[in-house]
Amino acid sequence: MIEILPVLGIPEVGPGDDIASLIGDLEDGDIVVVTSKIVSKAEGRVRQAPDRTAAIMEETVRVVARRGDTVISQTRHGFVMAAAGVDASNTAPGTILLLPEDPDASARRIRKGLRGRVGVIVTDTFGRPWRHGLTDVAIGAAGVLPLEDFRGGTDTHGNPLSATVTALADEIASAAELVKGKLGNVPVAIVRGLSHLVTDDDGPGVRPLVRPADEDMFRYGSRDVVFARRTVTSFTDRPVDPEAVRRALMAADAAASPTGEKAWRFTVDGDASPYRIVPSVVGEPTPARLLALGAAVQNVLVQLAMEGLDSRWTMDDAAGVIEVGHGG
Amino acid sequence: MIEILPVLGIPEVGPGDDIASLIGDLEDGDIVVVTSKIVSKAEGRVRQAPDRTAAIMEETVRVVARRGDTVISQTRHGFVMAAAGVDASNTAPGTILLLPEDPDASARRIRKGLRGRVGVIVTDTFGRPWRHGLTDVAIGAAGVLPLEDFRGGTDTHGNPLSATVTALADEIASAAELVKGKLGNVPVAIVRGLSHLVTDDDGPGVRPLVRPADEDMFRYGSRDVVFARRTVTSFTDRPVDPEAVRRALMAADAAASPTGEKAWRFTVDGDASPYRIVPSVVGEPTPARLLALGAAVQNVLVQLAMEGLDSRWTMDDAAGVIEVGHGG
Repeated sequence: MIEILPVLGIPEVGPGDDIASLIGDLEDGDIVVVTSKIVSKAEGRVRQAPDRTAAIMEETVRVVARRGDTVISQTRHGFVMAAAGVDASNTAPGTILLLPEDPDASARRIRKGLRGRVGVIVTDTFGRPWRHGLTDVAIGAAGVLPLEDFRGGTDTHGNPLSATVTALADEIASAAELVKGKLGNVPVAIVRGLSHLVTDDDGPGVRPLVRPADEDMFRYGSRDVVFARRTVTSFTDRPVDPEAVRRALMAADAAASPTGEKAWRFTVDGDASPYRIVPSVVGEPTPARLLALGAAVQNVLVQLAMEGLDSRWTMDDAAGVIEVGHGG
Repeated sequence: MIEILPVLGIPEVGPGDDIASLIGDLEDGDIVVVTSKIVSKAEGRVRQAPDRTAAIMEETVRVVARRGDTVISQTRHGFVMAAAGVDASNTAPGTILLLPEDPDASARRIRKGLRGRVGVIVTDTFGRPWRHGLTDVAIGAAGVLPLEDFRGGTDTHGNPLSATVTALADEIASAAELVKGKLGNVPVAIVRGLSHLVTDDDGPGVRPLVRPADEDMFRYGSRDVVFARRTVTSFTDRPVDPEAVRRALMAADAAASPTGEKAWRFTVDGDASPYRIVPSVVGEPTPARLLALGAAVQNVLVQLAMEGLDSRWTMDDAAGVIEVGHGG
């Protein structure tokens, strides 16, 4: 059995407050789940409301998508979330809150102030691209296994479990929100019954939960994707995967031609970095065919970027050459 | 306090089994969380492993993204998930399982077989685009509020709560997974202490959790986005939003030119459907400039698609015309 208990009676938190001292008695194996908002307040991560846009930009390393007033940002921490986590709710009027500077460090500090063998998770509320409604996820952790990795094991039928990695810290954050949200304005909950997930040392925090860019199949919001390609000025020696180039060319070649005829060709030339792709018109280079080839090259450049490859399209003769590699 | 209790001793489920009869005593207000796998087994949603690709296609209404062997599909139900939910783990060797045909209906059937005022959630395991690890989410529900909508309210500081809609059913699914996953092979858990979320009638199921396509900022996977544009043969009278066209042109115009000079121009001509955009070369139409213009047009077509607009690029003269509207 797992129990989720609210921590009642936590007063309004201000700069310099010691959150650990506000949390009462714990049992060994408890996981303390703290809403990031009070951590931000304790750490003085407050700004004035008119500075909201500047604050979002300060916290954003990459705009993942944008529509109207909504910006989905990747934060300095690697989180992909609305407005880089800058929040105007549950803070004094006229002020806004930023995420903690380093939420794993915040979790470690809180943990250090608590007695016993306990874990700490700092949470924030995230949207999801294809589902309505927000859920709480872990943005910082100390002393808790963030992921449970069943890879390499087998299920009860003997089938290999190829990719069953559970995001435990996120599930704990969501479970705690059920009690915090039910009561309203309860910023801390205790999850009891998961002592097997509490570790002796602080552990890796939430870093294992952040998917690296090269595994991200939704790296670019739809609007941004045509700018995904990176035009590089120099390439490293790191070899290019010919399969990745083949996939990019296949994908680009599947696009329709604006002229109704597919009068273009891509010749692959080279097997080092930079790899060379030579685009050319098939037949007479009429204006229409050159325009269609230009559109096709643009598709190739985007598809190469989707494979994690950098490119440079230069016009040394009519259609030029696309160099492909890893940017230096 | 919330308690999450495993339901132990559930035997291997087969076609025709009555899942409700396998669940023991409940209290009023309990929420029963059932792994979809046993629902699929009870409903006979089993296929032979060699038919996996066909099964994924059968369940897929749209490929959202693809990389190597991984396909992210939108299912018939509207869920965006790997392999359309077709799963080869925890099933008899040589077999695969599909999601229940209608998981909300499955939840209603299970609820009907249970005594007392209880809710039922059917869960499955989903990946997330920017975070490692899987979490359980609700794919079917009966008698449970799927979302808690705080919009229109105010927080404790009097700030308006503009978008705090919590995906309760998903958080409950994740909470239950903590107990099911901890013990292994426990397909049912009971969440106790959330009786305020249990409703008299079956309610809307999980439909409110599925984000409609026009709110989806990640509609197209990066690889597929260049094919997002729909080349239409006829347009309806529905007017085109000039702002959407302006945004698309601005976004496309921000791309770098392969020739180093931006020798293209887009002239907007028309305010009906189809709207007309005339691309042209600035200066002499050299091959390099035509190629660069072709790439720029491709960017415009993609950006128009991102605005939900259909287009048709025809070559009536050198660079032709882009007609923009809503496809008939």
